Amino acid sequence: MRVLGIDPGLTRCGVGIVDVRRDRTATLVHVGVVRSPVDASVAERLAIIAAGIRVVLEEHRPEVVAVERVFAQQNRSTVMGTAQAAGVALLLAAEAGLPTATHTPSEVKAAITGYGSADKLQVQTMVARVLRLEELPRPADAADALALALCHAWRGAPAEAAADAALTPAQRAWAEAEKRTRNRGALAR
Amino acid sequence: MRVLGIDPGLTRCGVGIVDVRRDRTATLVHVGVVRSPVDASVAERLAIIAAGIRVVLEEHRPEVVAVERVFAQQNRSTVMGTAQAAGVALLLAAEAGLPTATHTPSEVKAAITGYGSADKLQVQTMVARVLRLEELPRPADAADALALALCHAWRGAPAEAAADAALTPAQRAWAEAEKRTRNRGALAR
Repeated sequence: MRVLGIDPGLTRCGVGIVDVRRDRTATLVHVGVVRSPVDASVAERLAIIAAGIRVVLEEHRPEVVAVERVFAQQNRSTVMGTAQAAGVALLLAAEAGLPTATHTPSEVKAAITGYGSADKLQVQTMVARVLRLEELPRPADAADALALALCHAWRGAPAEAAADAALTPAQRAWAEAEKRTRNRGALAR
Repeated sequence: MRVLGIDPGLTRCGVGIVDVRRDRTATLVHVGVVRSPVDASVAERLAIIAAGIRVVLEEHRPEVVAVERVFAQQNRSTVMGTAQAAGVALLLAAEAGLPTATHTPSEVKAAITGYGSADKLQVQTMVARVLRLEELPRPADAADALALALCHAWRGAPAEAAADAALTPAQRAWAEAEKRTRNRGALAR
């Protein structure tokens, strides 16, 4: 299975592709970071990110796209740009006819290192070991994109209940509120 | 000037186009709501929204696109989907070669009704009056999209300082944190 992992961001958007066999061994296909200039408009930055992701989709033809799940209560000032970049990544995957999945950072860390609060160096080290790389993948966004792709291949697209079990209590409350909103929407139609 | 206003959302994305003359009088060109099914994946929903916005761009050829500015501290469970839909709207405008602008809901209300905390009915009523419509534009998302387009034409693309002056204190703190992040990003390059 060829998986594209995307660690979304406006300034640096990590993209990593791995081939994962049935025995869970994996090889690196591509890794990189799409950057956009901080002095451009958000719209221009999203177009630059989109162009970079399209090149990767066309050159490497992944079968599935995994994108990091962004939560609003990650109360960083960059969270809206990250959400917008994630939306663009999901859009491009859908327009390419590919299935998509989202995984939280703690799901990814747990899948790669066995520990949901692992630090960046631990993730980079395990990604390098799994993919038999001679150097740590850098920057961290690139390593995170590869970790996301590996996580997706190993976990599969999580059933909603299983995915929710891996959430922190705050994330679970959020996911449940989202679900209630979706259900209300369904009733309103 | 022909302006497309977009009130972003996954379930209902309002799109409204107005022609505004130099004397500030305006006429309705198009108004509608792009809907996506709540039981589809976020990626599929974004692709449906994108397809609807592309049709409007191609049919009506606006000269500028104004999108409602989404803040993370609007702590509703739908905020991430709204941010992703806004990102898609900005992307499509940039890919069509059009300039973009974002305006906050209170900027829009102030521009249309003279009152930044106006309710939905006041906005709908003023939009109908300005555009000489026989009925109130419905649903509210459609009226909001028209209000956004009128606001943009009347205010012009706000200089950053002027735009910040229209923010609430919480929004201003947020915008300043975003700016600091951008500046740090610029130094890090």
